[in-house]
Amino acid sequence: MKIIIDAMGGDNAPDEIVRGALHARKELGVALTLVGQREPVLRCLAENGAAPGEGLELVEADEIVTMEDDPSTAVRRKRNSSMSVALRLLRDGAGDAVVSAGSTGALLSGATLVVKRVHGIRRAALAPVLPNRPGTGVVLIDCGANVECTPEYLLQFAFMGSFYAERFLNIPRPKVGLLNVGSEDTKGGELQKQTFALLHRAGEQGQIHFVGNTEADRLLTGEVDVLVADGFSGNILLKSTEGSVKFLMRELKGVMLRSMRTRLGALMLRGGIAGLRRRMDANEVGGTALLGISKPVIKAHGSSNAAAVAAAVRQAVRFAEADVVGEIGRNIELMRLPEETEATA
Amino acid sequence: MKIIIDAMGGDNAPDEIVRGALHARKELGVALTLVGQREPVLRCLAENGAAPGEGLELVEADEIVTMEDDPSTAVRRKRNSSMSVALRLLRDGAGDAVVSAGSTGALLSGATLVVKRVHGIRRAALAPVLPNRPGTGVVLIDCGANVECTPEYLLQFAFMGSFYAERFLNIPRPKVGLLNVGSEDTKGGELQKQTFALLHRAGEQGQIHFVGNTEADRLLTGEVDVLVADGFSGNILLKSTEGSVKFLMRELKGVMLRSMRTRLGALMLRGGIAGLRRRMDANEVGGTALLGISKPVIKAHGSSNAAAVAAAVRQAVRFAEADVVGEIGRNIELMRLPEETEATA
Repeated sequence: MKIIIDAMGGDNAPDEIVRGALHARKELGVALTLVGQREPVLRCLAENGAAPGEGLELVEADEIVTMEDDPSTAVRRKRNSSMSVALRLLRDGAGDAVVSAGSTGALLSGATLVVKRVHGIRRAALAPVLPNRPGTGVVLIDCGANVECTPEYLLQFAFMGSFYAERFLNIPRPKVGLLNVGSEDTKGGELQKQTFALLHRAGEQGQIHFVGNTEADRLLTGEVDVLVADGFSGNILLKSTEGSVKFLMRELKGVMLRSMRTRLGALMLRGGIAGLRRRMDANEVGGTALLGISKPVIKAHGSSNAAAVAAAVRQAVRFAEADVVGEIGRNIELMRLPEETEATA
Repeated sequence: MKIIIDAMGGDNAPDEIVRGALHARKELGVALTLVGQREPVLRCLAENGAAPGEGLELVEADEIVTMEDDPSTAVRRKRNSSMSVALRLLRDGAGDAVVSAGSTGALLSGATLVVKRVHGIRRAALAPVLPNRPGTGVVLIDCGANVECTPEYLLQFAFMGSFYAERFLNIPRPKVGLLNVGSEDTKGGELQKQTFALLHRAGEQGQIHFVGNTEADRLLTGEVDVLVADGFSGNILLKSTEGSVKFLMRELKGVMLRSMRTRLGALMLRGGIAGLRRRMDANEVGGTALLGISKPVIKAHGSSNAAAVAAAVRQAVRFAEADVVGEIGRNIELMRLPEETEATA
């Protein structure tokens, strides 16, 4: 197994990227290809007592995709960027997965352009795994890649999310819900109504385990293992969850610092609360899979530190081993719109 | 000031409704009209040592709007329901505001049908106030009344939310944001792009204080005082915030119960955490104003207990006193689409 790392992507590149990748390499025994500017990457390697050699390759790429670049054209325009080169290496079979903490939009457009989608998949989707009550994790798909969606996109997201939950999270017969403003079958706008019909049919045919319309407050309860959404609503849900957690953690801190007594109480709870904070921290959860791309591409959080990069590499390895991409390809026929629906779409 | 109470609406009606209303009456010195079935309401009054008399009226209504009734027709079909009668009393000037914990959809359709919208307002919207970091509260408008929206609806929501924040929350020049998937001006789908242009123009003309596109994780930070959304996204945001808070509070409880040591720590933090829980609890926040209706209508949470009902009555009084409805009516010309935009809409 060889993981290709975009060493220059993200707020803390290359230092934290290289450190995290080296950590994962040691832990997992995987080979690494670091893609980036020669001098900075060599310096980071040296600072961590490493140098290119067996199982640790450096591929030079001078340019860097930044947050200022237009996401839809960055990878094409900056052909010699670390992101572009990493994606071409993946396409050409020089590694098993790409991990990048660079611009989400650029990585998504770039992966679609260079690595291509699985044949038959209309749109790739961002599918983060969020911590939930049962502790198994819940897949939210899509959460921002596709602001405007069709029922067919959402049908494909449901299948891809289900395969991902089954093979990557090891959840047998994952419960798939459709994000909606109520749990009744008739809720939502046209997109939700048409998608409900498609998912209901797929459920009846035993292709997925569709549990119906699902309200946003059910994301973390364990009632669903996969929550299907258009990229706009999914992004609202993801960001709002992050924002609420951050808000509450900060309020809790305020409560704890209020007096000597509360400070003492906080001390006694320190371990548990640190664990909770870690569990909710995007940096610890690892990366987000780009489902629908024909080879494994993992987006690490832009603000990833070394631990987050290591987690993303760990995720890339497991994602590749689970062969989620292969499973999507083998089942593509199930994800096509029935002809009569396609005609009216 | 006289508040009309739908005594039969909500999960805990009539007991908690009557108790909460009586509590608010005592605290605020307002007159009450309780609308509902004679025997149960009289029994509840008696249990609380009260009886109809000066400033405490009982208006009989035999039917009850339930969650099983079709929201769009319930008030029309059940003409003698407590909700219908309460809304007609308000329309006819027999009170200053209605408070109901009954079906949100039915109350919204009913208020639109019976009390009517402010002349020129296209759609009424649900505008809950959420607790935020500065402690001033933030208005989220809409959060479920209108699943499919036009730019003009959202423009009107922005104005109504701004007047509400200014007069009801006492925030001078409230910061108005548009819920979107990024903070850049060009983000979102067609609805967001067109709405952005309208809000930007209203901001430039000094009619509202528009601060731009706002991501969901900024709801509680204080960066905005009013967040404008279509009813679908707004509902996702509201429910997701509720769900995240519930999830974290439960996880926190788990942390606290882990050992003798953590239980002791929890004891020392008890007051602060109870306060935080209360602050985040929908039941304590009070009701949600239906903005755009021509008289004050407040929706209390369906699961309201007496404290929540009292909070909703308190809110109804302040909402009526602040004359938010009048302010909307006086400014209706600002909320009309410029003609050239209307032509292409």
